[in-house]
Amino acid sequence: MLTSLIFSVWYNPVSSKNLLFFSPANDFLPILASGLFIGILGLILWLSNDSLNQNSIGKREGYIIVVFTWIIISLFGALPYVLSGVTHSYTNAFFETMSGFTTTGSTIFSDIEALPKGILFWRSMTHWIGGMGIIVLTLAVLPILGIGGMQLFVAEVPGVTPDKLHPRITQTAKRLWMIYVALTLVQTLLLSLGGMSLFDALCHAFGTMATGGFSTKNDSVAGFSPYIQYVIILFMYLAGISFTLHYFILKKQFSKVFHNEELRHYTQILVVSTIFIAITLIVVDHMPARESIRHSLFQVVSIVTTTGYITSDYLIWPFSTWMLLFLLMFTGGCAGSTGGGIKIVRIILMFKNSLLELKRIVHPNAILPVRLNGKAISQQIIFNVLAFFLIYILIFAFGSLIMSFLGLDFESAVGSVAASLGNIGPGLGVVGPVLNYGVLPDPAKWLLAFIMLLGRLELFTVLILFSPSFWKK
Amino acid sequence: MLTSLIFSVWYNPVSSKNLLFFSPANDFLPILASGLFIGILGLILWLSNDSLNQNSIGKREGYIIVVFTWIIISLFGALPYVLSGVTHSYTNAFFETMSGFTTTGSTIFSDIEALPKGILFWRSMTHWIGGMGIIVLTLAVLPILGIGGMQLFVAEVPGVTPDKLHPRITQTAKRLWMIYVALTLVQTLLLSLGGMSLFDALCHAFGTMATGGFSTKNDSVAGFSPYIQYVIILFMYLAGISFTLHYFILKKQFSKVFHNEELRHYTQILVVSTIFIAITLIVVDHMPARESIRHSLFQVVSIVTTTGYITSDYLIWPFSTWMLLFLLMFTGGCAGSTGGGIKIVRIILMFKNSLLELKRIVHPNAILPVRLNGKAISQQIIFNVLAFFLIYILIFAFGSLIMSFLGLDFESAVGSVAASLGNIGPGLGVVGPVLNYGVLPDPAKWLLAFIMLLGRLELFTVLILFSPSFWKK
Repeated sequence: MLTSLIFSVWYNPVSSKNLLFFSPANDFLPILASGLFIGILGLILWLSNDSLNQNSIGKREGYIIVVFTWIIISLFGALPYVLSGVTHSYTNAFFETMSGFTTTGSTIFSDIEALPKGILFWRSMTHWIGGMGIIVLTLAVLPILGIGGMQLFVAEVPGVTPDKLHPRITQTAKRLWMIYVALTLVQTLLLSLGGMSLFDALCHAFGTMATGGFSTKNDSVAGFSPYIQYVIILFMYLAGISFTLHYFILKKQFSKVFHNEELRHYTQILVVSTIFIAITLIVVDHMPARESIRHSLFQVVSIVTTTGYITSDYLIWPFSTWMLLFLLMFTGGCAGSTGGGIKIVRIILMFKNSLLELKRIVHPNAILPVRLNGKAISQQIIFNVLAFFLIYILIFAFGSLIMSFLGLDFESAVGSVAASLGNIGPGLGVVGPVLNYGVLPDPAKWLLAFIMLLGRLELFTVLILFSPSFWKK
Repeated sequence: MLTSLIFSVWYNPVSSKNLLFFSPANDFLPILASGLFIGILGLILWLSNDSLNQNSIGKREGYIIVVFTWIIISLFGALPYVLSGVTHSYTNAFFETMSGFTTTGSTIFSDIEALPKGILFWRSMTHWIGGMGIIVLTLAVLPILGIGGMQLFVAEVPGVTPDKLHPRITQTAKRLWMIYVALTLVQTLLLSLGGMSLFDALCHAFGTMATGGFSTKNDSVAGFSPYIQYVIILFMYLAGISFTLHYFILKKQFSKVFHNEELRHYTQILVVSTIFIAITLIVVDHMPARESIRHSLFQVVSIVTTTGYITSDYLIWPFSTWMLLFLLMFTGGCAGSTGGGIKIVRIILMFKNSLLELKRIVHPNAILPVRLNGKAISQQIIFNVLAFFLIYILIFAFGSLIMSFLGLDFESAVGSVAASLGNIGPGLGVVGPVLNYGVLPDPAKWLLAFIMLLGRLELFTVLILFSPSFWKK
């Protein structure tokens, strides 16, 4: 949080005046106060807790620690917004922070450019921290969670078939974060070369690599040059790929990358959907071909990777194109990426299993396992994936129902829940791409914040705490 | 089909004039000609096919026979509509017939009361035949399908855990049809006692017991007395229960009925949803309590049982109530009932499995089978149910996408596909409860007709024909 002070001072040099008042223009003191408060609180807790027995971190403790870490970090991460007075509602501040950490990118601010730069940087920083994972970051930089680390890692990065890059979990976490930092720096450099200020470049690199979607501009990235938009497209695509594959590329194990089914289908979905939408825009809206391809590619990649940046208000496009975009809100990026949603690999496994089910009806005695990357997948994993899908759809359905009871219309209700559960950001209707979540009633904001957390931790990690059997000895 | 002639003659006595012309007012000759044509064609096929080896009806032949029977009966069942000239579009006639046989109840007619009575009776008759199943009817009344019968029965009534009422499948079919006929007659009697004409009573009993939804009135059953509406509610409820349970009641095996989990949850869903909607109508729309309970109960039972009769245009109710009704479009009636949709038992099994999945994460080595009515359910069945759900959602999603490409708006697209796939009838938007499907473009009608068939035969029976492995030796 304190790194945000650099940009606070840079853009608004500290004087005696802005040290005295807490006001939207003066974000130095609010951020400093928040940071010190949280730091001191943490220090007290750490020092008072020297009896921590790391061997006692089992499966259950792992889930509890991860879920409450995410909630607590959001509760405290909201402080700078409230203390600086950019919003006077704690609900709004919490919503914005949860939206940041879960890399959703939904905002309650209508005039983003009016926010002081320190606040804006903290806002983008929440994306970046949440993108690779708070626990993964802690594992990478703090050695204190040595033994229980694996339990925490599994709870925060549930995935489908978790690949460990190193037998020691702290080493895995370190490698993931190194790749993440490197890609962020390269993107920052490329964006700066396109004429962006360092501040804008960093903020947008954070938003891209975390598949978050917070921008520093009111019109998201619509006002930037096509070059910058293409750079963002490229890095959204990279951020939506499993980081394990990035590691394989570094290790020059290219065959593992080429034969990865998830990457292939992920790319196919992007290409086919883009062609579909681009043609519709050319035929129906008579948009010039080059522009139509850029806008469609940007929107498709942005939504499939669950980033949520926009270059164009897709709600004024023909119905059919945003219907497709709405369906793409459910696919999500690859497992092990920073993207949210159901994840491509789960969809592949479900598809394959359904096709096999048709075979099983004709040949009931044949044993037909689902195969992925040439390996048979156990029934347990298929069960888990199908249960995940059902719960995902149920949360979507009941969430939409509750939103409609809170007064939202059909499109806004389903759009806001789909966009929050998938950690995307812009939805349909009143929460469409050029609008914001500030207009929603407070209970709707709390509900959506909870749904974002459910989506970010891939449902089970959170839901398991509600299961009575979890608490039984 | 020829039974419709009775009401044709009753309401419009045959004279030399209406024997000469094919016109909307004169439905005698069109129905007679259609019936004789189909009868003669069938006779020729039957006589020319004396080499039929019934032993050759295996699993595959079962699926082929069932799917093509449903398509062929709809292709020919459309004849009276076209020959009488009530519609000049064969697409419309086919849509109406498929909608009838699949007990969907979507109509392309805007003025139903203007249709001649013979046509109206045939329209309701398609519901009644399709409700219990064309193949089941054939098994019950024609002995020719003796040996291959079981394969056909399984293909038409896939169910989840098919209960046979008798070791011999023709006996099972006979019993099912006897219960069906008996309930229809009782309902007809009760409706007549409420002042309905025999014609209206029969047509509405057909529409109710088949969970179809075709009415003889333009405003569905809104114009009838509360007594009649409550009779229809009762029989929709009964039609949405597994017919196996009706048989148990006849056999006085009440404990099997009381301990049936599907029946319990089916009833709970109806009660809870009704209370929810009734309270909303009272609080938000200030509707009198008695009226609000009747309308909510009617609409909830009508949609959960996938009947589709209406007493009130729910689209003018508060958003939240029709959002709930929309979600209820996916539950469906009980397995083994005449209702469509996903079916309550599948939802119960998926719910239970998901809760167990949370347990399995904490206790990965425990063997935790899903239990229904006290019995452990095999993994194969759970797999099948989850695959069914995925395919159901996929068809819903892609169907809506195609509908949006055919020019429908968001609500109409998702509403029409959900209502067709669940064999319900009225949807949202332009295909809402007080409107009709006549305005849709022809390709949309063919697509929806196909989706109705998919829903009626519970997906796999139709989809299996598209699987390459099905056709391999």
